[in-house]
Amino acid sequence: MANTKSNLQIDSARLWNAIHETAKFGATPKGGVRRLTLGAEDKQVRDWFRDACEAAGCEVHVDALGTMFAIRPGRDMSKLPVAIGSHLDTQPTGGKFDGVLGTLAALEAVRAMNDAGIETDAPICICNWTNEEGSRFAPAMMASAAYAGEYTTDDILGRKDADGVTVASALDTIGYRGAEAVGARRFSAFVELHIEQGPLLEAEEKTIGVVDRGQGIIWYNGTIAGFASHAGTTPMPLRRDALATFSEVVLAVEKIAKTHGPHAVGTIGEVTIENPSRNVVAGDLKFSAEFRSPESATMDALHRELQNAVKDIAARRNVEIVVEQIWRKEPTVFNTQIVGAVEGATKQLGYSYRHITSGAGHDACNLAGVMPAAMIFVPCKDGISHNELEDATQADCTAGANVLLHTTLALAGVVSAPKINS
Amino acid sequence: MANTKSNLQIDSARLWNAIHETAKFGATPKGGVRRLTLGAEDKQVRDWFRDACEAAGCEVHVDALGTMFAIRPGRDMSKLPVAIGSHLDTQPTGGKFDGVLGTLAALEAVRAMNDAGIETDAPICICNWTNEEGSRFAPAMMASAAYAGEYTTDDILGRKDADGVTVASALDTIGYRGAEAVGARRFSAFVELHIEQGPLLEAEEKTIGVVDRGQGIIWYNGTIAGFASHAGTTPMPLRRDALATFSEVVLAVEKIAKTHGPHAVGTIGEVTIENPSRNVVAGDLKFSAEFRSPESATMDALHRELQNAVKDIAARRNVEIVVEQIWRKEPTVFNTQIVGAVEGATKQLGYSYRHITSGAGHDACNLAGVMPAAMIFVPCKDGISHNELEDATQADCTAGANVLLHTTLALAGVVSAPKINS
Repeated sequence: MANTKSNLQIDSARLWNAIHETAKFGATPKGGVRRLTLGAEDKQVRDWFRDACEAAGCEVHVDALGTMFAIRPGRDMSKLPVAIGSHLDTQPTGGKFDGVLGTLAALEAVRAMNDAGIETDAPICICNWTNEEGSRFAPAMMASAAYAGEYTTDDILGRKDADGVTVASALDTIGYRGAEAVGARRFSAFVELHIEQGPLLEAEEKTIGVVDRGQGIIWYNGTIAGFASHAGTTPMPLRRDALATFSEVVLAVEKIAKTHGPHAVGTIGEVTIENPSRNVVAGDLKFSAEFRSPESATMDALHRELQNAVKDIAARRNVEIVVEQIWRKEPTVFNTQIVGAVEGATKQLGYSYRHITSGAGHDACNLAGVMPAAMIFVPCKDGISHNELEDATQADCTAGANVLLHTTLALAGVVSAPKINS
Repeated sequence: MANTKSNLQIDSARLWNAIHETAKFGATPKGGVRRLTLGAEDKQVRDWFRDACEAAGCEVHVDALGTMFAIRPGRDMSKLPVAIGSHLDTQPTGGKFDGVLGTLAALEAVRAMNDAGIETDAPICICNWTNEEGSRFAPAMMASAAYAGEYTTDDILGRKDADGVTVASALDTIGYRGAEAVGARRFSAFVELHIEQGPLLEAEEKTIGVVDRGQGIIWYNGTIAGFASHAGTTPMPLRRDALATFSEVVLAVEKIAKTHGPHAVGTIGEVTIENPSRNVVAGDLKFSAEFRSPESATMDALHRELQNAVKDIAARRNVEIVVEQIWRKEPTVFNTQIVGAVEGATKQLGYSYRHITSGAGHDACNLAGVMPAAMIFVPCKDGISHNELEDATQADCTAGANVLLHTTLALAGVVSAPKINS
């Protein structure tokens, strides 16, 4: 096979243009995108995407949950395709890059291959996974989870949004309820480009994140039962203050996560006091909490230490604290070979990089359970995502797309590259 | 003047009966009372009270804010009356004793004087102060505050409830908009019996609380501005977590109050996170806070120490914290002579007692600004008040009423007591 030269680059302007053109479907006044899965704007971008893939010589297929697969033929059609892509749905107040970058970079990689006249050995498949965000229908990363066998198709088809509309009905309304069985189409690997959605690459001035792990996560629901009493007449030593107790729990979660740094994180993001009043010592409240870590053993330790801390606090304050685990997802370990291909491509292209753990969930994390997979991160401004202010530079998006292109070529094998200067 | 014998007692069953009979006006299924000021149930209890006072030989007057004054003549009508009483309105989910005990014990004291054929030198006045609770109309202790000159009558008449009904209109509807100017009727002293609404008397097994002070109070509104970020992708050291910050503030308020024990109290009872989410590090939140202390200098210290703590926390966590004082009320120092009369009566009757600070606000606290005043506390079960479970024993209510009776007789002077056994 011919060596692909590192001077093979994607078309930066064409990628940037595609991102901004599709951003019009659901554009918000603040510069973001509101394109909930299977809605009118999603149909628009899917139609755009289908047309673009077909114009790039791909054959577009849709499965029973609306996931789109655009196949670029290879020399050996008996080989499983190398899959690349992400998602095109967004958060209610989402940005232009989350999911969109990975999907349109995959399209751009195929367009660049076409421009260079490259024939690969194995086929390439550009994927647009349905409902990654989980905003309109639960769960998040819905279609890739079904593909990976975590849910049956019928289960997912019956999921309802807040207005009672089912996934099945929404798919039918936009005409994307495909013929293919979910999970029928297999691949040799899946590589997903995505903005980091965190602050590390920007802080360390690295262009590329070679993602080797995805965080495992534990979700908790908690309650605290103290005693609601008059704020004026109840002396401090006689209080059973649920909010002061909660404050100790918040700081314990923070401390426990920090002791398992640098990767572990712990967060309490919600609290609701029952019948709150300025002059009433809080008696009852509920809250949510989560831990994340790329190591299963660490997750066990985080969980154990939290339960111990909660026991101590409850005893000392003479209140009841219940912290109940409601979900646990084990860490994702991306395939060493695919991660190596990403790192190899990055080095070959000369970009600064670091290995990084994905703190957020992605389709690639689900798919890693059923095929070799890896991810490529690029920086996003201030680490902001799930926010209309989400931003990334053209240069970084281009770099990520180049790494995606070269990783894909390395995995699919290049048969001929007639238009590349040697 | 004849000595009143300590064997002069109120009629325990008659007092208990009055409490439970009036509890029917607005009775709740849980055994409490919902009798918002100037509503239909309040009219019922006011009519009952008027009839009972008149049947006890009192002349009933009503001022422009509906406060009722029932005068029992004395020998020397040129002397200012000794005023006793409390309020008959309740919280939305109130109990049977808060305010009611003090008002009906005052009525019972008059009835007991009648039974014993006692003539006092100065007249006695039983008071029912309008809108002590402040649930329907703000502020709390509304009528006594106007009496004490803190608000003009017109200001109060224009106050509206949540439905836009004015105090003036509500008074007219129930027919209790009296002719007398607020504050025109003067007294030599005011003594108020009340349940403690706190846990101390019960915990220390004391029957009577001789109230010598009322807490001063500072109210704050607070905001914290950190940075909302993804709970999975933001490493712990890079967070600006408003909720973790808030937790430190809660514990600081608690600690600061404790260092000024045993009297000072500090409470945060409300917090609202902006756009909370299980997997988002809290960026912005608001909260309320309060300190109470019976000493002005301590209030200054509490305030100062909180501001310093907040500054430290904000700097360390790199977030913005604003804690703004919105109200400050100085402590009430009850009149030594009147407090002494209460203590003297308590000793004479042989009840166990302790001096105590009132942690809650009462009409007596407002009135102490314009006349000698004091309060008498009795225990309530578990210190619970502002709650349908509020409870007090017949024996304790009786003890409190006896102390009120003897205090009143000491202050008004007994001319003759023909029916008391010597």
